[in-house]
Amino acid sequence: MEETEHIILGIDPGTNIMGYALLKTHLRNSEIVTLNVVKMNKLPDQTAKLRMIFEQTLQLIEQYHPDILAIEEPFYGKNPQSMLKLGRAQGVVIGACLHAGLQVFEYTPRRIKQSITGKGGASKEQVAAMLHNMYTFENETAYLDATDALAAAVCHHLQTRLDFGGGKSNSWAAFLSQNQDRIIQS
Amino acid sequence: MEETEHIILGIDPGTNIMGYALLKTHLRNSEIVTLNVVKMNKLPDQTAKLRMIFEQTLQLIEQYHPDILAIEEPFYGKNPQSMLKLGRAQGVVIGACLHAGLQVFEYTPRRIKQSITGKGGASKEQVAAMLHNMYTFENETAYLDATDALAAAVCHHLQTRLDFGGGKSNSWAAFLSQNQDRIIQS
Repeated sequence: MEETEHIILGIDPGTNIMGYALLKTHLRNSEIVTLNVVKMNKLPDQTAKLRMIFEQTLQLIEQYHPDILAIEEPFYGKNPQSMLKLGRAQGVVIGACLHAGLQVFEYTPRRIKQSITGKGGASKEQVAAMLHNMYTFENETAYLDATDALAAAVCHHLQTRLDFGGGKSNSWAAFLSQNQDRIIQS
Repeated sequence: MEETEHIILGIDPGTNIMGYALLKTHLRNSEIVTLNVVKMNKLPDQTAKLRMIFEQTLQLIEQYHPDILAIEEPFYGKNPQSMLKLGRAQGVVIGACLHAGLQVFEYTPRRIKQSITGKGGASKEQVAAMLHNMYTFENETAYLDATDALAAAVCHHLQTRLDFGGGKSNSWAAFLSQNQDRIIQS
């Protein structure tokens, strides 16, 4: 892989569904390699789910050879116990990725939404709609967990592609998010 | 390893210190193999700490061949953000252990304290003091993180050794905790 090429793995490990996306990038361009969810609601307990998350992550790494993990870093949650569970699921993903030598980047939900839609307070649906403008993929509401994962990967790409300069922005929102200093505040 | 023999890995992965303990058990007997801490306060960021926790866990598994992980499952924390961090650290440990084929058991702090001291609300120091009665190891306050890890391992041992029946209990507290139905409530 050239230095200007990356394969970004985005993962959103929830309690019952794990969303994932692989985004291949080259300079300022990007395309979706795959986008899907793993359903875990029938697994008997949290340990079985963590095992599934770990194994699925390793399998994605083996199959697609990503060099970067992009993951959401929430700043608040429903309650401490939910945050512990989410943290454990993320820790399992991060452990698998560090083990395989990936670089790990994390972004707050606000920064992810901001970079994709231009609005830090955008809804999941608005983020998904903007991603549909930027990329071609099947539109299924069941895939909101997958678009969350994709959003983290796209956010990383949008944050770093500024380094390559020039070229045309994928979207006005992306252009705005990359050029905050050029926005005249009202 | 015989079926009646186990090597239990207890890990308490904190933000700046990771405590760990290896407990070798045979039927109703147990002995400490090792007990120590890994200091991580000089590492630059959380990702570096998670990497260290993952690598140290794998190294402990490779060196001591534990078949069981015992870990604390807190039900509340200082705040959601702390719980996310703790969850991630635990997730990294759990991921490494599942990867290596260990069985994972988790116990609430209350159950750990109860099983060792007889009191669910015991302090860390009281737990450490009781562990000192049960086993021989150096007494250093710097090792409270290590005794927390040991406590989780000992809790698992005390919970399961009932299965082997008979014999003498290591401590009155342990005896009480194992014989709740024989305690006449006042």
